[in-house]
Order: sequence, then structure tokens, then C-alpha cells
Amino acid sequence: MDMEMARQSKTGLMGRMWLRLNLVIENCWARLAAAAWSVVKVGKEDPRRAIHSLKVGLALTLVSLIYYYHPLYTNFGATAMWAVMTVVVVFEFSVGATLSKGVNRGLATLLAGALGVGAHHLACRSGKTGEPILLGFFVFLQATTSTFMRFFPRIKARYDYGMLIFILTFSLVSVSGFRDDEILELAQRRLTTIFIGGAACVIVSIFVYPVWAGQDLHNLIALNLEKLGNFLEGFGDEFFKPPMDIDAETTENKSLRGYKSILSSKSTEESLANFARWEPGHGRFRFRHPWKQYLKLGALTREYAYRIEALDGYLNRNIQVPAQVREQIEEICRDLSSEAAEGLKELSLVVRTMTRGADNIGSRLENCRNAVKDLKALLKTSLWKDTDLLAVIPVLTVSSLLIDVVKCTEKIAEAVHELSSLAKFKETDASVSPEKPLSHVGDKCEASKPAVVPTVENQCPRVVLTVHEVVPENGRLPAAPAPAPTSAPTPTLAPLNS
Amino acid sequence: MDMEMARQSKTGLMGRMWLRLNLVIENCWARLAAAAWSVVKVGKEDPRRAIHSLKVGLALTLVSLIYYYHPLYTNFGATAMWAVMTVVVVFEFSVGATLSKGVNRGLATLLAGALGVGAHHLACRSGKTGEPILLGFFVFLQATTSTFMRFFPRIKARYDYGMLIFILTFSLVSVSGFRDDEILELAQRRLTTIFIGGAACVIVSIFVYPVWAGQDLHNLIALNLEKLGNFLEGFGDEFFKPPMDIDAETTENKSLRGYKSILSSKSTEESLANFARWEPGHGRFRFRHPWKQYLKLGALTREYAYRIEALDGYLNRNIQVPAQVREQIEEICRDLSSEAAEGLKELSLVVRTMTRGADNIGSRLENCRNAVKDLKALLKTSLWKDTDLLAVIPVLTVSSLLIDVVKCTEKIAEAVHELSSLAKFKETDASVSPEKPLSHVGDKCEASKPAVVPTVENQCPRVVLTVHEVVPENGRLPAAPAPAPTSAPTPTLAPLNS
Repeated sequence: MDMEMARQSKTGLMGRMWLRLNLVIENCWARLAAAAWSVVKVGKEDPRRAIHSLKVGLALTLVSLIYYYHPLYTNFGATAMWAVMTVVVVFEFSVGATLSKGVNRGLATLLAGALGVGAHHLACRSGKTGEPILLGFFVFLQATTSTFMRFFPRIKARYDYGMLIFILTFSLVSVSGFRDDEILELAQRRLTTIFIGGAACVIVSIFVYPVWAGQDLHNLIALNLEKLGNFLEGFGDEFFKPPMDIDAETTENKSLRGYKSILSSKSTEESLANFARWEPGHGRFRFRHPWKQYLKLGALTREYAYRIEALDGYLNRNIQVPAQVREQIEEICRDLSSEAAEGLKELSLVVRTMTRGADNIGSRLENCRNAVKDLKALLKTSLWKDTDLLAVIPVLTVSSLLIDVVKCTEKIAEAVHELSSLAKFKETDASVSPEKPLSHVGDKCEASKPAVVPTVENQCPRVVLTVHEVVPENGRLPAAPAPAPTSAPTPTLAPLNS
Repeated sequence: MDMEMARQSKTGLMGRMWLRLNLVIENCWARLAAAAWSVVKVGKEDPRRAIHSLKVGLALTLVSLIYYYHPLYTNFGATAMWAVMTVVVVFEFSVGATLSKGVNRGLATLLAGALGVGAHHLACRSGKTGEPILLGFFVFLQATTSTFMRFFPRIKARYDYGMLIFILTFSLVSVSGFRDDEILELAQRRLTTIFIGGAACVIVSIFVYPVWAGQDLHNLIALNLEKLGNFLEGFGDEFFKPPMDIDAETTENKSLRGYKSILSSKSTEESLANFARWEPGHGRFRFRHPWKQYLKLGALTREYAYRIEALDGYLNRNIQVPAQVREQIEEICRDLSSEAAEGLKELSLVVRTMTRGADNIGSRLENCRNAVKDLKALLKTSLWKDTDLLAVIPVLTVSSLLIDVVKCTEKIAEAVHELSSLAKFKETDASVSPEKPLSHVGDKCEASKPAVVPTVENQCPRVVLTVHEVVPENGRLPAAPAPAPTSAPTPTLAPLNS
């Protein structure tokens, strides 16, 4: 009986152990699969990441040749280490970042090395006791000053790494000089190996599948304009769809919400622009390409996105528009948002292809302005007399935001136009006059006018229309005249992999 | 005659040179003054910057003692350099950042050193020709894999520097082993000096005027809530002020617009939270303080700021509200925004002082809800029948946004409440029930209801009121009953220097 129980408990134990082992194996397997999946995901998000990794490996293997190849090693000795270090810390994802770090490192080493040698010589003259005190004082003074300088916004943005290397090199050279008298030779060898490491980085970075920060910034700005367009394109359908179709989060919603990334894109844009300035001319970008204008365009895009965010707040809210109001307003709002969307997409295309003239931006904006006029005219009609104001507030707010959006579109069109002049975009057709593409009046002129009586023109959000007035008879305008079609085929949007 | 002219031209030349010299001196002087001014400005913005600089100088001087003090130097020799390097690259502004970098550097060096020694031994066995080939292969493989891993968002956020040091150390140890057979001793000495450098950083960072990333994050979140409150506090005056008072940019406007910095505060908050996780308990913060909750609060603050940005768009626009409408709506809107402002400021105070119970948040929110009800009731009255809809759209939009703002305030109050539970804020008084401070219903419940007939309750932006209904007779409610005053004096807000 006891033996039977013991055997049973033994098989039970074995069974439990087997089960636990199985569980552990399954767990490991699941984790491995998850890890593999995240590798694929990270690689797929931007295939250039895998290439960059290979490039780093290549550059590092190249500079470690100094160790393997005897004649080189006898020349540099242990300072060969600095070449390896330089590659590891200088090699960055984009050419601009690599160049920025490389130049910073090179110049800072040169300057700090010279100063360090000077400090060493000065300290040497003050005797055996005075030397370490004076050296310590120099190091302290230099480290304190340079660290403080790193807080200056301008220096932080462009020379932060250089300042770090400056502190490092000065301290190393001046202090190690206390123990090593061949300080000049050491400094020179170190500089040479750092130069070799830096050169390896820059050469591999530029000549093996280069990643240009400038190109990335360019693509990002174009993509962001397109994302704004995507939202506006889908907005009409989403806002006016029957309440039963509303569900929490559909796939379509996700593509609509692509604009969310724009809200926090400021730092990315700034660092890309910063790196882009270091890059030599490449492809369609000259050395002094107007990168600042991209930042301006980026800021406008963000302002636009804040408005889109406000519009987004009115989606999926189960808003019930009285039927007679809905009938009237739906078409105009749809027109307005889809025309603005098309305008944005064309602007995105202008930026992406760096070609202007083949677009209908002028007529798109014209259509937008006409739609704004229709909307305003509609709001003045007696249609609203009998409606519950509380019930139509969301529709009114959305209308007001859409009118605001047209104004933003005009600002962006102007900024794109400026960019196209500064960066000398290709002209393909004169269908749009490049001199005055927009009949747009700035805010300042408007703001300077004192106390104006409320009219259609000055009441709605910062939009001033200079188009000639057409008074509608039924509260709505006939469809705007179709713009003269341009002969150039509309280029398709290439998918971006940035 | 000729001599006279020559003399004249000579004095003329002297005069011009004198003038030019004066100009150069003046120019230099102006530049020097500008530089001095910017030093003062950077220092005044955050006096801890100057202290940080002195701390770096101190730590660097401390580790360079290894060079000056003979017994130490005989121990470490040239590897003393690594202590200096470690201090320069590891010492960061906050304790968390310094600890994060120090721990990353230490662990990565240990791990990569061990692996590097292993790779060296493995390569040694493959003969004189095979060794460099195998070593090169190892370095390539390791650099490629590690570089790719740096793209994983989680690794990038917390271990990026560690990965860099891992690549560096592995390459250095395995490759330099090719030329140096005392590799183990070298690795051990390097590790020791790195440890010394890291320890110097951490000790100086923690014990000399420490800057805690956690404290900074805490202050930033509290400050941002206050900035939102500042805008809402001034909003009523700005929006309803007579048109003649509108000018481009007054001082008051600038203090109103403090909220703009919140729009792009995401990356700052994230990196502060990241560093805060590394920090030991300090002051009122435990080791595992709920830093994630701060990020949640930060995200809500940003959402709030987007709405404030939309409201801001309606300031200084010369909006003419018909007198009879203005009279009615002005008081309610002012009440609403000032109550929301006070609520935000109290929430900011709760966060800053880490004390709850002494606040009137509950009654502030109650007042807000009452104001929303008044506003909705007003919008349902016949007051609007005879007004030009186009003229009152801005007022209606602002009303709708303000109602939205109340909802956001409730969300933030809820998040602060969660934080106060998680972080165990001090309780001073039971004037507000901590269990159910907000009668607030989430969005999801609302969204799941199909096709609802528009009523006061469901029509306005995402705000569901569960307070008992009081129907106003004249379209306006009597002032909300004054909340029971708490005995605790309202603490004044200390100025922040972060």
C-alpha cells in the first residue's frame, strides 16, 4: 500500500516536472518568437537601420586593421586604440551627424591638445611642488568654464560634443604630461589616429548607402503635410457618418490619426536640420540648402496640427445635426475639407518632387475660399432661426475651425512658395503665376485696424478674403468654375521609408 | 602747397585710423558686454548650472590626483587616463542621469571585457593567420548586432550609452589583446579606474548640491498645471476686453502664453522620468516613486494645452459680441474659466506640496459644472433668436471649448488623485472625500450608447454631468453655494528655478 502510494506520488512528481518543463520551454519559445518579431519590426520600420549596423561593423573592422597590420602598428602602438574609440563614438546614423561629431572631435582635440601642451609647459616652470597645484588649477578652471559654456543654447545645439572632447583632451594632455615627458609626440600620434578613425567613419558613411539628414528632413516635412491632408480628406465622412457606424477605433481612424505624430515632431525636425547643415551637397540639395525654411514650414505644420487636433475632438461624438441644417451644411463642409486636403497633398507633392508649376494649388485655394464664402453666406440665412442652438454648436464650431484651417493652408502654401524660391525648385509649367500665387493678407494689417463693425469679412477667424464678392440667391453658391486642367500628369506618391 | 596737402592728408589718415580704431574697440566692447550678458542670463535662468560646472571641475580635479600622488600612479600607470575619461563623459546634470550613465558604463565594461577576453582566447587557438581573421569577424559581428539593438526603443531609452560602451570595450579588449598579452591585467586595471571615476561622479553628484531629475519632473508637472491656470485666469479679461485695448503683444499676454512651452514638453518629461527611475529615494520621493503617473499627467496637460491653444486663437481678434448677448454670456464664461483656473492652481499646489485635503478642488469642479449648466441653459433660451449667427460664432466656439476644458480639468483632477494615492501624499483634512472626488463618467460609456436624441446632456463635448438638475428660471443659476472654508491657510507658490 505504502509502496503503491510512493510510486503514485513519484509518477505524479514526474508528471508535474514534465508539465513544468514543458511550460518553461513554451515560455522560452514565446519569448524567442517575440524577440525575433521585434527584430523584424525594427528592421522593417526602417531597413536603413540594418544597413547602418553593417556599416558600423565595416568601419570598425577597417580601423582595427591598424592592430593586425604590423607596419601600421609599429607606427602607432597603443594609440591605435583612439582610432577604434573614434569610430565607435563618432559613427552616427546620418552623414550630417557623423560629420558634425567628427569635425567637433577633430577640432576640439587639436585645440585642447595645443592648450594642454601649453598648460603643461607653464606648469613645468613652477617647480616640483607648484606643478601639480598649477595643473590642478588649470584643469579645474577649464572644466568649469567649458561645462558652463555647454549650457548656452547655441553651443549646446551645435558644439556640445566638441566641448566634451575639449574638456577630455585638455585634462588628459595636461595631466598625463605630469608623468610622461614625450607629451608632444603622444599628442601628435593621438591626433593622427583620431583623424584616421574619423576619416573611416566619414568615408564609410558617405560612400556606402549614405543616409542624409537633409533628405530625411525634406521627406518628413512632405510626409507631415500629407498626413494633415489625410485627416482632412477623411474628416467629412467621419463627421457626417450616421451614428450607428461609430465604433471605438477602426483601421480607417488610425490612418486619419497619423497627424498625431506631428504634434511632437519639433525636436526631431530641429536635430535633423542641425545635422543637415553639416552635409555637403547631395542629390537635389546644395550645400547651403535653406534648411531653416523647413523648420519654419515644420512650425506651421504643427500649428495646423493643433487645429486638426481640435477638429478631431468633434469626431465620433454622436453629434445629431437637425436634418434641414445637415443637408445644407454637409456639402459645403465636405467641399471645404476635401479641397484643403487636396491642396495640402499637392503642396506635399511640390515639396517632395521639388517641382512647381504642375500643381493646381492656386485653384484649390480659390475653391477653398469660395467654400468659405458659401459657408458664411449660409450662416447668415434664416435657416437657423428655428433650430436649437445648443444642438448645432458642434457643427458651428467645426465650421469655424474649418475656416481657420483654410487660413492655415494659405500660410503653408506661402511658406512652400518661399521654400521653392529659396531652394530653386524646378519650374515645369507657368499655369500658376509664381510671383503672386496667393491672394492672402497677413494678420498684422488686420490687427492694426481699430474697432471694426462685425461683417462677414472681419468676423471669422483671421481669414481675409480678397476675392470678388458673389452674393448667392439661395444661400449657396454654384460650384466653383473648374480650374484649367494642366497637361502634366499627376505624379504618384512614392512610399517613404523614413 | 604740396607739403600742406600732404600734411592735411596725413592728419586725415591719422584721423580715419583713429576713428576706425575707436570703432573696433567699441565693437569689441559691445561683443564682450553681450557675451557677459548671456553668461548672466544662462546662469540666472537656472543657478544650478554654475554649481554643476563647479562640481564637474571638482570631480575632475579629484580623479587627477591619481596622477599627482605617486603611490596611486605606480599602481595604475597610464590606465589612470580612464578615470579622467569616465568623469568627463559620465558626469551629467542630474543625479539620475549620472547614475544611469555610470551604471551603464560599469556594467557594459564588465560584460564586454569578459566577452572580449573570451574572444581573444578563442582566437588565440586558431593560429597566427587565423587569429586576426577570427578577431575581425568577432568585432564585426558584435558591432553590427549591438548597433542594431540600439534601435530598439526600450534599449534606446535606458541602455543606449551602455550599448555604446559595450561595443567600445569589446573591440578594444579583443583587438588590443592581439598585441598585448597582459590582457587580463589590463582589463582589470581599466575596470578599477573606471570604477574610481564613476564613483567620484556619483559621490560628488549626490553629496554636493544634488540635482534630482525626479524633483525636476515633479516641479515641471506642477508648473505646467499652473501655467494652464494662468492662461484661463487671464482669458476672461482678454476675450471680453474692449477692442481699443487690443495691441500686438503686451507683458500680460506673455505671461498668458506661458502654456506654449507645454506643447513641446514631451521629450523633456520622458527623459526626466527615465533618469528619475535610477535615483535613490530623496526628500519626499521614495525609490519606486510612481514616475509613470507623472508622464500620464504630462500627457493630459499637453492635451489640455492643445485646447488652450485653440482658445488662444480667439484672443485679440477684435470680436464684436452683440451687447445683449455679451451681457448674459460674459459673466458665465468668466466664472467658468476662472473656476477652472483656480481648480488647476489648486491641483498644481496639491502636486507641489504633496499634500491633499486642504484644497477646494471638489467645490471648484462643482462650480465649473454649475457654470456649464448655466451656459447650456443660456444657449437654449430665446436670447439668440434675433442675433446674427455669423457674429456670435466665435462666442459659441469659445463656450464650447470652455465646456471641453472643464472635462479636461476633471481628467487632470482624477490623474492627480491617482498620483496622490500611488505616491501616498500627506492627508491634512477630510474636507474632500478621497474615495470619490469627482462625479465623472468616462468617454467609453458614452460612446457605446447608440443614436441618442440630442439633449443638453449628450450634445456638448464629451462632458457628462451627474450632478442633480436645477432648472434655472431666468436662464441663469444663482451663484453656487460657497464651499465650506477650510482652516488651513493657502500656501503661497514658491518660485521655481527649474
